[in-house]
Amino acid sequence: MELDLARQLSVTGQSKILLLVMDGLGGLPHPKTGRTELETAQTPNLDALAAESACGFTMPVALGVTPGSGPGHLALFGYDPLKYNIGRGALEAAGVDFDLQPQDVAARGNFCTVDGKGRVTDRRAGRITSERCGELCAELRQIALEGVEVFVEPVREHRFVLVLRGEGLSDAVGDTDPQQVGVEPPAPQPTALEGEGTAQLVALFVEEARRILADQGPANMLLLRGFARRPDWPSMWEVFKLRAAAVAHYPMYRGLAKLVGMEALPAGPGIEDSIATVKENWDRFDYFFVHYKYTDTAGEDRDFERKVAKLEEVDAAIPSLAALKADVLMVTGDHSTPAVQGVHSWHPVPFLMRAPWTRADACDAFNEVALEKGSLGTFPAVESLPLAMAHAGRLTKYGA
Amino acid sequence: MELDLARQLSVTGQSKILLLVMDGLGGLPHPKTGRTELETAQTPNLDALAAESACGFTMPVALGVTPGSGPGHLALFGYDPLKYNIGRGALEAAGVDFDLQPQDVAARGNFCTVDGKGRVTDRRAGRITSERCGELCAELRQIALEGVEVFVEPVREHRFVLVLRGEGLSDAVGDTDPQQVGVEPPAPQPTALEGEGTAQLVALFVEEARRILADQGPANMLLLRGFARRPDWPSMWEVFKLRAAAVAHYPMYRGLAKLVGMEALPAGPGIEDSIATVKENWDRFDYFFVHYKYTDTAGEDRDFERKVAKLEEVDAAIPSLAALKADVLMVTGDHSTPAVQGVHSWHPVPFLMRAPWTRADACDAFNEVALEKGSLGTFPAVESLPLAMAHAGRLTKYGA
Repeated sequence: MELDLARQLSVTGQSKILLLVMDGLGGLPHPKTGRTELETAQTPNLDALAAESACGFTMPVALGVTPGSGPGHLALFGYDPLKYNIGRGALEAAGVDFDLQPQDVAARGNFCTVDGKGRVTDRRAGRITSERCGELCAELRQIALEGVEVFVEPVREHRFVLVLRGEGLSDAVGDTDPQQVGVEPPAPQPTALEGEGTAQLVALFVEEARRILADQGPANMLLLRGFARRPDWPSMWEVFKLRAAAVAHYPMYRGLAKLVGMEALPAGPGIEDSIATVKENWDRFDYFFVHYKYTDTAGEDRDFERKVAKLEEVDAAIPSLAALKADVLMVTGDHSTPAVQGVHSWHPVPFLMRAPWTRADACDAFNEVALEKGSLGTFPAVESLPLAMAHAGRLTKYGA
Repeated sequence: MELDLARQLSVTGQSKILLLVMDGLGGLPHPKTGRTELETAQTPNLDALAAESACGFTMPVALGVTPGSGPGHLALFGYDPLKYNIGRGALEAAGVDFDLQPQDVAARGNFCTVDGKGRVTDRRAGRITSERCGELCAELRQIALEGVEVFVEPVREHRFVLVLRGEGLSDAVGDTDPQQVGVEPPAPQPTALEGEGTAQLVALFVEEARRILADQGPANMLLLRGFARRPDWPSMWEVFKLRAAAVAHYPMYRGLAKLVGMEALPAGPGIEDSIATVKENWDRFDYFFVHYKYTDTAGEDRDFERKVAKLEEVDAAIPSLAALKADVLMVTGDHSTPAVQGVHSWHPVPFLMRAPWTRADACDAFNEVALEKGSLGTFPAVESLPLAMAHAGRLTKYGA
C-alpha cells in the first residue's frame, strides 16, 4: 500500500498490534535430514499459533533479492524498501541514539588492522572489545577539521560512527573500506561534483587517524563506508496513526525503528526481557515491534543446531507473548538466513498472523513446508502492516 | 525487478543458467479426456525434473493478457514487456540478421493473393515456398523511391521485411494488412503528423509492387504491418552481467534475443540440434536461451495429439539437456497455446527451476494440475531471471 493511501485510510483505535521479528528466520533443508531449521526445531507453541493463524510467506523486497537488515525491517514497518532506502552511516548513527541533524553526514566506521605497507590484514581488528572501541573513539575526537564539528561514536566491538557537522557538507563520498584484505584502503573519492569538499575533509580525518592509531595495534587503522544523511521520512504516526514502539537489544534495530518515528525501548538480550518491556509499556502504544537477533547470528555462523536451539528458545516464550493478548499478533523475520548458506538470502520468510476475522487455513505448523498450505501464499512484506491494520479495525473503506 | 536495480545488484560469476522455452507450452483440458496436453503426454523426464525443482507458473504480461512472441520472450529475458515493447517490423528485421540502423523504418510484409477487384482472398498466398519468396523480393528491389534506399528481405514462406533508409523517415504509419479476407488492403495512413511523408513513400512502394506482382499469382499482392524503428535497449551484459546466447532455429527468436544483446547461435530444427549447439559453445557463455517452436505450431494448428507428441519429443531430450549440468535449469514457455483454442492465450505458463538452494516443493510432475502444488505459485515471468540469478549466486544484497 502506498503511504498516501495508508494516510487516507488509517484511523486511530484501541486495538494493539504486536510484531515479533525473528531475525534471519527462514531456512533451507539440512543436507543430511532434508529438514529445515524450523522443521527440525520442536516448536509446539508456534505450531499451535500457526494452527489458529493466517499463514504464508513474506517477500521482503522482490523475488530473488536478498535484503540487508534495513530493507528487511522497513518493509515490515509498511515502508517500501525500494523507495525508502537508507545509507549505512545514517542507520548506524540512529542506532547509537546519535541525534543526527539534517545537514550532518554520517559514515559507518570499522577499526581495522593494516600491515607495514598499509595493506588491510583484518577488516575488524580481531573484533576488539567495545571498551577498547570507546577508548579509541575518544582518541579520534582530538582531530580538528576546519569549519566542521567531528563526532566519533563507538557502536560495539570494532564498529563506530563518524559524523561531520557543518555548512555545505555532502554525502557524495565513496567508501574507504575496500571490503577485502591484502589491499590498501582507497582514499575517499567524491561520487559527484558536490562531494569534492567533503571528500577532502574525510581524507584529512583519515590521515590524522592513521597517525593517532599507528601504535594502537591491532586496531591501527580505520575504514569508512556508507556516507549518508539522515533520511526525512514520514512517521508511523503520520501515516498509519499508530503510536509505535521498538523493543530491541541491538542498537541498529532501535535506530532503524526511530527513523520511522517509533519510540525505542531498550531491552535485555533475551526474548523474555523484551516481553517484559512490552508489558511495562503496554498502555502507551498501539504497535510493538519486538526484535530477536540470535536466529540470524546462528544462521550467519552456519550453526544449524544453534539456530534450531534459538528457535526453540523463542517458542518457549510464545505463551507469555500470547498472554499479552494483542489483537493482532504477527510472527515473521526480516529475511531468511539459512544456516546451510551462512548469509542473508532471498528466500521468502515464514509468516503467521493471529487476528480476528481471519479465514480458515490448512496450515497447522510453523515451518517452510507446512506454511505452503497457508492462505496468504507468498506476498510482499510491505503489505503485512496494512493487512494487520485491517484485522485490527484500523483501516476504513476505500471509495464510496 | 527494475533494470536499474538489476544493474546495481548483479555480479559476474562462473555459474551457468540455461532456459528452455517450449513455445506455447501451457494448455487446456481436452473436452473428451479432461486432461491437458502436458497431462496427456508421457513425460517421465520432465516429471522427474519437476520433483527436484521449484515449480509454479509464470505470468508473461499480466492477468488476462495474451502475449505476442515478443513480450512473452522479453519477460523471460528479464525485460518488463510493458516497458520494452517492439514493433513487428523491427523484430522481423532483426530475425533475418538485417543490420537495422537507428534512422531506418522496417515493416513486416506478407505476400498475399487478391481477386480481380483487389480484395484479399488469402493473406498468405497459399504459403508460397521460401525460394519463391526470395525471387519475389528480388523483383521488388527494382522499386526506386526518391531520397530513400529500399531493402526487401525474404524471411520464410510468404513473409518478408521491408526497410526504408533515409533522412526524416517516421514509423508513424498504419498497416496495409486488413487482417481479414474479402476486403481491399487499406492505403497506408499516417498515424501522427510526422508520418505523412513516409506514408506517401509507402503508398508509392505498394502501387509499384502491385504492378510488378500482378501476374505472379498466387502471390499477386503484398500486405505491410508493424512499421517500427530499432529499439535501443540495454543489453543483458550491461544489466545482468551475463554473456548470453540464443539457440533457436527460427530467425525471429534469434532476432528478438539479439535486441537484448544475446549472441545468436543458429541450430537445426530438433531439440537435440539445439542441445548440441549449447554443448559446443558451453564455455563461451553464462546464459543459454534454447527455443523449441513446434509445441506452439501444433497448438496453433489445433492439433492436440501433435502437441502431445512434441512434448514427448522434448521430454526424451531432457536427459541430455540435464547432462550439461547448468547450475540453474529453467523449463517454461513464452505463453500458453492451448490446442483447444488454437491461438496464443493468457493462461499462466508451466515453470520449473532446478537449482541450488531451492526449498522443498510438493510438486512431482510437470503439468498444469501438479504444478499447482509448486512453491513458486503464479509469478511474473519477468521475475524468473532475477530468481535464477539469485540461485546462481549472481545477485548481491540490497541495502545495508
